Amino acid sequence: MGIFTKDIHNMNDLFVHTLSDMYYAENQILKALPDMIEKANDNALKNGLENHLAETKNQVKRIEQVFKLHGVDAAGVDCPAIDGILEEADDVVGEVEQQGVLDAALIAAAQAVEHYEIARYGTLIAWAKLLGRNDCASLLQQNLKEEKAADAKLTQLAESHVNRMAA
Amino acid sequence: MGIFTKDIHNMNDLFVHTLSDMYYAENQILKALPDMIEKANDNALKNGLENHLAETKNQVKRIEQVFKLHGVDAAGVDCPAIDGILEEADDVVGEVEQQGVLDAALIAAAQAVEHYEIARYGTLIAWAKLLGRNDCASLLQQNLKEEKAADAKLTQLAESHVNRMAA
Repeated sequence: MGIFTKDIHNMNDLFVHTLSDMYYAENQILKALPDMIEKANDNALKNGLENHLAETKNQVKRIEQVFKLHGVDAAGVDCPAIDGILEEADDVVGEVEQQGVLDAALIAAAQAVEHYEIARYGTLIAWAKLLGRNDCASLLQQNLKEEKAADAKLTQLAESHVNRMAA
Repeated sequence: MGIFTKDIHNMNDLFVHTLSDMYYAENQILKALPDMIEKANDNALKNGLENHLAETKNQVKRIEQVFKLHGVDAAGVDCPAIDGILEEADDVVGEVEQQGVLDAALIAAAQAVEHYEIARYGTLIAWAKLLGRNDCASLLQQNLKEEKAADAKLTQLAESHVNRMAA
């Protein structure tokens, strides 16, 4: 980022910046998920997180396709938001010993991540359409759909038994 | 947090920790909103953010009521997630000069904040009910309802004219 000049001049710059932010974020999530999977005790939660790890790998590839379609090299930019969300997840989860409570904390942490992604993909889709990039919007829409499904699945897991096991 | 001991022993500890996290988060949002309002160019966006500043003050009071009902002193804990989200908002918005683009960036930043809150209040409500605190859940539900409405309003603003003004 510029110290004396402003680097985002138009909507295209803002779109590419935010896409780069999500590229970094998804890659950080890829690094964080294996530790969450290892810590999860409930089998359905463990499987759900493993499934989302596979989805996340595909989501990274879709973002790379969006960069390519848009004629821009794929590159991440620092994303203090996802860094903060993952740091907090690590802090809280690290304070919990009892397995049921740990699972409840893991679900909450994963849902905070999902909601960050839901917000960002929603924004990116709107901006892609505005820029006439329905091809990019369509790929981003697939990522958004998966994030929303992952969030709903986590809610269902919490409500079905994980929270009750924790109490 | 303990260095040699883990501080979250049960669901009640996890609930109080996460409530403290949101108490800190809402107070940080209260500090950040005036700058966003000042930077907003579109009148409907400026009014929407001003309205949300007033709502946020009430939300802080509701969290204080929840602490009181639950018999715990109201206190915040560090929340790296909201710090990161607000830092990123400040970084990106600071890189934009053109007013329409700035408004689009402000809406995106505000929606990232809303989604963090939506995730956390959803979790807190589920845990409050699990702990038999329907009185606390009801207050938190009011905050969640306002956050969801604020997010929907921001989407509507983006779609109705702000994004088009920016392009």
